[in-house]
Amino acid sequence: MFTKLPVGILGATGIVGQRFVQMLEHHPWFEVAWLAASDRSEGRLYGDAARWRLKMTIPTRVAEMKVAPARPEGAPKIIFAALDAAIAAELEPSFAAAGCAVVSNSSALRMHKDVPLVIPEVNPDHIKLLECQAWRKKSGGFIVTNPNCSAIGLVMALAPLERQFGLDTVMAVTMQAVSGAGYPGVASLDILGNVIPYIPKEEEKMEEETLKLLGRLNGGGIEPGGFRMSAQCNRVAVEDGHTESVSVKLKKKAKPEEIIAAWNEFRSAPQELHLPSAPEQPVNYSIAADRPQPRFDVDSGKGMTATVGRLRPCAVLDWKFTVLSHNTIRGAAGAAVLNAELLKVRGYLD
Amino acid sequence: MFTKLPVGILGATGIVGQRFVQMLEHHPWFEVAWLAASDRSEGRLYGDAARWRLKMTIPTRVAEMKVAPARPEGAPKIIFAALDAAIAAELEPSFAAAGCAVVSNSSALRMHKDVPLVIPEVNPDHIKLLECQAWRKKSGGFIVTNPNCSAIGLVMALAPLERQFGLDTVMAVTMQAVSGAGYPGVASLDILGNVIPYIPKEEEKMEEETLKLLGRLNGGGIEPGGFRMSAQCNRVAVEDGHTESVSVKLKKKAKPEEIIAAWNEFRSAPQELHLPSAPEQPVNYSIAADRPQPRFDVDSGKGMTATVGRLRPCAVLDWKFTVLSHNTIRGAAGAAVLNAELLKVRGYLD
Amino acid sequence: MFTKLPVGILGATGIVGQRFVQMLEHHPWFEVAWLAASDRSEGRLYGDAARWRLKMTIPTRVAEMKVAPARPEGAPKIIFAALDAAIAAELEPSFAAAGCAVVSNSSALRMHKDVPLVIPEVNPDHIKLLECQAWRKKSGGFIVTNPNCSAIGLVMALAPLERQFGLDTVMAVTMQAVSGAGYPGVASLDILGNVIPYIPKEEEKMEEETLKLLGRLNGGGIEPGGFRMSAQCNRVAVEDGHTESVSVKLKKKAKPEEIIAAWNEFRSAPQELHLPSAPEQPVNYSIAADRPQPRFDVDSGKGMTATVGRLRPCAVLDWKFTVLSHNTIRGAAGAAVLNAELLKVRGYLD
Amino acid sequence: MFTKLPVGILGATGIVGQRFVQMLEHHPWFEVAWLAASDRSEGRLYGDAARWRLKMTIPTRVAEMKVAPARPEGAPKIIFAALDAAIAAELEPSFAAAGCAVVSNSSALRMHKDVPLVIPEVNPDHIKLLECQAWRKKSGGFIVTNPNCSAIGLVMALAPLERQFGLDTVMAVTMQAVSGAGYPGVASLDILGNVIPYIPKEEEKMEEETLKLLGRLNGGGIEPGGFRMSAQCNRVAVEDGHTESVSVKLKKKAKPEEIIAAWNEFRSAPQELHLPSAPEQPVNYSIAADRPQPRFDVDSGKGMTATVGRLRPCAVLDWKFTVLSHNTIRGAAGAAVLNAELLKVRGYLD
Repeated sequence: MFTKLPVGILGATGIVGQRFVQMLEHHPWFEVAWLAASDRSEGRLYGDAARWRLKMTIPTRVAEMKVAPARPEGAPKIIFAALDAAIAAELEPSFAAAGCAVVSNSSALRMHKDVPLVIPEVNPDHIKLLECQAWRKKSGGFIVTNPNCSAIGLVMALAPLERQFGLDTVMAVTMQAVSGAGYPGVASLDILGNVIPYIPKEEEKMEEETLKLLGRLNGGGIEPGGFRMSAQCNRVAVEDGHTESVSVKLKKKAKPEEIIAAWNEFRSAPQELHLPSAPEQPVNYSIAADRPQPRFDVDSGKGMTATVGRLRPCAVLDWKFTVLSHNTIRGAAGAAVLNAELLKVRGYLD
Repeated sequence: MFTKLPVGILGATGIVGQRFVQMLEHHPWFEVAWLAASDRSEGRLYGDAARWRLKMTIPTRVAEMKVAPARPEGAPKIIFAALDAAIAAELEPSFAAAGCAVVSNSSALRMHKDVPLVIPEVNPDHIKLLECQAWRKKSGGFIVTNPNCSAIGLVMALAPLERQFGLDTVMAVTMQAVSGAGYPGVASLDILGNVIPYIPKEEEKMEEETLKLLGRLNGGGIEPGGFRMSAQCNRVAVEDGHTESVSVKLKKKAKPEEIIAAWNEFRSAPQELHLPSAPEQPVNYSIAADRPQPRFDVDSGKGMTATVGRLRPCAVLDWKFTVLSHNTIRGAAGAAVLNAELLKVRGYLD
Repeated sequence: MFTKLPVGILGATGIVGQRFVQMLEHHPWFEVAWLAASDRSEGRLYGDAARWRLKMTIPTRVAEMKVAPARPEGAPKIIFAALDAAIAAELEPSFAAAGCAVVSNSSALRMHKDVPLVIPEVNPDHIKLLECQAWRKKSGGFIVTNPNCSAIGLVMALAPLERQFGLDTVMAVTMQAVSGAGYPGVASLDILGNVIPYIPKEEEKMEEETLKLLGRLNGGGIEPGGFRMSAQCNRVAVEDGHTESVSVKLKKKAKPEEIIAAWNEFRSAPQELHLPSAPEQPVNYSIAADRPQPRFDVDSGKGMTATVGRLRPCAVLDWKFTVLSHNTIRGAAGAAVLNAELLKVRGYLD
Repeated sequence: MFTKLPVGILGATGIVGQRFVQMLEHHPWFEVAWLAASDRSEGRLYGDAARWRLKMTIPTRVAEMKVAPARPEGAPKIIFAALDAAIAAELEPSFAAAGCAVVSNSSALRMHKDVPLVIPEVNPDHIKLLECQAWRKKSGGFIVTNPNCSAIGLVMALAPLERQFGLDTVMAVTMQAVSGAGYPGVASLDILGNVIPYIPKEEEKMEEETLKLLGRLNGGGIEPGGFRMSAQCNRVAVEDGHTESVSVKLKKKAKPEEIIAAWNEFRSAPQELHLPSAPEQPVNYSIAADRPQPRFDVDSGKGMTATVGRLRPCAVLDWKFTVLSHNTIRGAAGAAVLNAELLKVRGYLD
């Protein structure tokens, strides 16, 4: 008889932690068996400790679970992590050292040379990098990460172009939703009727993560993508969904219909393996003149599909387009769950 | 005794028309003597015909003026125009042919080869182009235009760089306020919690106007600026103030402190001539890490100063920065009033 | 074999018309067979004529239907109407006279003495009033209406109180979503960061409709409810969901737990008859201190459940509470569809 | 020679503290000489410690002042306080005991029987209550408070009615701006596109403060107003300005024109004494059908005038109307400064 694998959530009370709870409720393979958060929450019922901010009702079973201490003792072997970077830098290695598979959304270790930074549709083979981890060798535990919410939509739009035409140059300007900053996150006085042209460390993450994601596994490391990349990041008064204005220069000439086909026909490991959280179509091109828009497109593919639109020539590089993806589903919790599904199928969770 | 020059406003009931009323109230040189709008408003009191949308109270004297027919007969010799492009294409030439100085904010004729497109700080000498106009030759009338609200802030930030270092490449992504679409303009259902990645014809205007503004008067025409330029335009839930993420490549190497000095020290004809609507400092660099922001900076220099911030290296071009300007003051009515002031000082309104 | 009844939508391109399309897609009894809108749309494909504003994708079959002229000729016998009042006052009678069952969301005829104004959970017996209609007698056609979007949530919260305790006095202040004004409706410049304390004719509708809905069918007319009622209506920057702060004085003393039970246990004809669009629980009391909120509760019961919260004593009347309902589902299209379902079960659509 | 009185600000870094800095900059009588905030800010420059959130630039002189410890030692004799209630309950008495005149915006002591709760236009004589304070008797120090931001606009609209017609019953529903919750205050995820129907303790404050403000000084205490009062409080996505829908029953019949005249002609001590921060007209009736609105009316009288509109009959009580006032100027810092000005003129600051 098939029994679900017990999983834990580190940082369970935050916005991304809540998305983990949502995405794991009714998951065919995984079942939430353990929740941990900051000391303040420890020992309380999850339903009391979490300020639940999602539209769906908090699942009763999870609401009545007690928040455990954020320590490996007593934790299941599979851990989803949604921690602030500073805390993640400390806690995640301790869980990996204790033998846990840490599937992390935190930024702390994404650029660590032995830590795979993975989007299953884009660079599933990078997962092998975890074999290099000292934790893996000693205890069997390891850490796998997914990218920043601003990088992931971009990279999903870039991957089919890189595959077919090669990337020479990428420039991206983001308009990011407030949920990307967690809860309470952005103060309403800061964003009502406003744009904030600065998100600490976001541009750096977006640039270096994009290059790592589109890089090549080479022996025991990742050779970053061979293109130039520049990002500018802004916060806007949107609840969910990061919109990005992108310009690219390709290595090979491409016609617009070829580019659109490259997006719409892009399929990869998660689709071939029928991973439970994989969208049927990871990238969808919208032909409407004024799309994608957060209001209409953010939940495409249950929040796992990146929507691209407005492909048109760029007077400086080759092509301009807009990409939108759901920042706390495809850009965070959903990304990690899909990573875990890939790990499971590849035998790393046995 | 000094008497103010009577001026008229074509398209007086719209948002930009209202800004004209605001900016001309208490103007030392000009006095609103005539208001015209669509047929629907003709014959009504301005206070009844205009759905007043500004924070300041509608000036009583103007509120009680009767809206005149939109025809040159009976109109004063100086006309500020804030018309939709299609209507402007018809009406503005008829006023110029009748001998009026038409100072227009409309897009219809901006790219016409004989029509000056002017920002007084940037290309005041382009005004001479009006001497080529057939209207000028026949009736003395002429048309002078100011740029699109999305181009003007950008060009104010670019002009000091072009002057000192030369521009090679410019890429700009805008996040534009809803007032730029007039009233009623953008439906609230379209923009609450949303980003719209498309504004009809905006990118084309922004690209071609920027090149004309930074071009060179050469005989009877303008030779466009010698740099490459690409724009992407988005609408966001902001009332007033267009924010733009810009990347530039310069012809000459520049240090950041030199660039910042170029902006802060930029002065030009309006400042030298002490034009009444000229801001003391046309471009102001904000040193705060997270500025400019519409909430704080849009009214800088009474809405006539462009605020720049976040200068940092670009991994693709040379430099990245953010620029903000008030789209209905510096980007529309204020731009036209400053043009009229320049025309007055240069003797074109005598 | 069961075949679905063909239905038409009058005013199909507006926001409520779109909600009709959404709610009738996959309806077990009804199928959209005819769409009409203003002259401007006539003859065009619905997908082109309607500026689709809902999150769900426009159903392909409907998108490809041609918009018919807004005349009874060729229309099916069951018509859902979502017209502006002035147009409804003309068109709806012409369809009823032609033998159509007009299930209308329009305000034009709601207060007509022979026209039933119905919420199936509240006053299903009022439907009999349609037997008094001259159209019914001549052609078999008739008109049935549902209330204004601001009245419906209130009345759903009041009905269980009226039933069990009797109402003496009702005071309600609304904070209404922009979708209630249709599309384009409220200009973004009017509502971003703002409250508009006025919605034309809304307070009058809310007061008189509430009294008619909670009135008693008496011979050939409705005797209005025997309580005093006062409403104040405001527009706020919310997309969907009208929130209302209500105070009531009851005829009979009631304990808070009795009131909450009255709400939670309220069931009526639609639930007993298992009407397809009926929510399991028409009124739901939320125990959270800060609910209902549009963000979390608007879609409760697929948008057909009214959520009540914050029951507490009132220092002037007896009790204060907050009620929220979805203004374009329960407050418009869903209300009409539920009315049609009741009519069907009662044999009026045979 | 006239020298300005040195004043201090307790809680100087918060939103209301910043408004104090703004309103005292260029004040003819007072000069900020001392700033204190939480321990975290102590010793830092004010410009670094305060996250400045106002549109006006932070005054340079104040920005360069060092934040002092929040202790009476070294503090000036006049203290404006903008502290959280819990901290105020401790700190304000210690300053009064040390001989300071504490002019407080905090809620902690407003309902204390010896503490005057004052709006200078409404109940200036209540100031005498401070003579009952033990601190006053021992050290000369005292505490005077102004009401909650939701009560003050209401009471300014009620006072002229109470004076001329007598109040029998008052019901008010608020739609309050986010700045009322301080900074960071309301999370953007909580309020974008939303209404929150709950503000902790706000309704209680609003009800009891209104009764105290409109009460009568009677020997050594305040006899609360002789009317019934009920409030419901909501938070909306507005930056500044609390809008309130009010219904009242008067003791004496009044015609609408008499009520409007009562508002427009209302003058009181601050106007008669020409206090520097007093608005010329404390209450202004707007005749427009859809006003007051935060966007247009919040800054009326430099934020010190309450705007009333939409007077119309109420089917339950006598009259309904809407009132708007600036919550951090008239409703907080401006209220306290006006109190201090009254205290000065009455000789309490000598």
